Amino acid sequence: MTRYKITVEYDGTPFSGWQIQGNGPSVQAELARAIEGLSGQHVVPRGAGRTDAGVHARGQVAHFDLIRDFPPGTVRDALNFHLRPAPIGILNCDIVDESFDARFSAKARHYLYRICNRRAPLILDRNRAWHVGVPLNAAAMQEAAQTLLGRHDFTTFRSAQCQAKSALRTLSSLDVTRDGETIIITTSARSFLHHQVRSIAGSLKLVGEGKWRPADVRRVLEARDRTACGPVAPACGLYFMKVDY
Amino acid sequence: MTRYKITVEYDGTPFSGWQIQGNGPSVQAELARAIEGLSGQHVVPRGAGRTDAGVHARGQVAHFDLIRDFPPGTVRDALNFHLRPAPIGILNCDIVDESFDARFSAKARHYLYRICNRRAPLILDRNRAWHVGVPLNAAAMQEAAQTLLGRHDFTTFRSAQCQAKSALRTLSSLDVTRDGETIIITTSARSFLHHQVRSIAGSLKLVGEGKWRPADVRRVLEARDRTACGPVAPACGLYFMKVDY
Repeated sequence: MTRYKITVEYDGTPFSGWQIQGNGPSVQAELARAIEGLSGQHVVPRGAGRTDAGVHARGQVAHFDLIRDFPPGTVRDALNFHLRPAPIGILNCDIVDESFDARFSAKARHYLYRICNRRAPLILDRNRAWHVGVPLNAAAMQEAAQTLLGRHDFTTFRSAQCQAKSALRTLSSLDVTRDGETIIITTSARSFLHHQVRSIAGSLKLVGEGKWRPADVRRVLEARDRTACGPVAPACGLYFMKVDY
Repeated sequence: MTRYKITVEYDGTPFSGWQIQGNGPSVQAELARAIEGLSGQHVVPRGAGRTDAGVHARGQVAHFDLIRDFPPGTVRDALNFHLRPAPIGILNCDIVDESFDARFSAKARHYLYRICNRRAPLILDRNRAWHVGVPLNAAAMQEAAQTLLGRHDFTTFRSAQCQAKSALRTLSSLDVTRDGETIIITTSARSFLHHQVRSIAGSLKLVGEGKWRPADVRRVLEARDRTACGPVAPACGLYFMKVDY
């Protein structure tokens, strides 16, 4: 058996998420279909992160095993062929040791959240960013973001459906920058809770529009109370960017 | 009568171009429909540039006259309402003097051409960039670009269907830069010939992949021969960015 590691880009818009589910198209199912097209084997790839419906990836990582030992460039190109016309692309393929696990070997995960901050509706960035019409103060959002760094109980910022046993997570970085009408939130951690990035983005937006002071974000973190969180930011602004191993 | 100047963003993918034509949806027709929805008047807006099918705009400018004197913010918001779900958005609206003409008052036009230079197919940038799989040398493309600056007969770089009387144009700037897998070509001039930017981009791509030397671009310019031009770059990479008045 040979283990393959793939780096995957996808447009999350038409999918019910990464994971195979009873109903609705999933990235994982499309990949399994393409792997079967290449190899004849039915194999379900395991991903580094289970992105939700509408969430995009520029660097999701997954692994799977095949009986045959294909050159990695062949796997990449053949999967891209079989994936069409689904909006999923294999950016890279490597053969890895059997000890490699896309999910459990990950040392850090990197996400980006994109806000388009303007009055006019989104056109070229439709389904690619969160449209916020009221002016946001990115400097205040950045100030608030810094109060979340480090190891905390993130109960406030995780979905009620989150299945992780512990809400303790260590946020390595969380930065808010503005470039014209675009506000970019970047964040990294070894792992994230369900809806953690979108919950944080939603709360930072309240700071940006002046409804919360920057110190309120720390206050709601310390409350460890899901109901204290701002509204969860929409999926279409979130991008799974990179995994470090 | 009141003259309105609008700044328009659009996704060119579903349109047969800016201009109203017998068949096929056009940006101009959608705008006329929205203006009628707002005002009850049937008015065709005049644009600063007639972009081709598939070409995008982040800052097309157009003007039109209405009997009623609406506040410009009302025009912007009402047109955005009536434009839905067409991928066209009004970024800005101003009331201007009746001497203002979106086309003839323009002092400079700015275009951007985007290449995604990677092996993997385009996913999040599908229809938003030219996919070039072979590695491109952006520095060589930039060197070649500089030989086109200034006033020249651009017969080589214009469509055989171009209706301009003269092929003389003055290229104010033409720059090629790389940011990761993205190559950006930016250019400005008082006006451009039909297919000029895409013809130049197509020839610069030949330089980037080493099929032409940088000096060949100047050579084909001086040939004043349409058949000497490289293949015209696809419409989906081109963005009409801005007009100066």
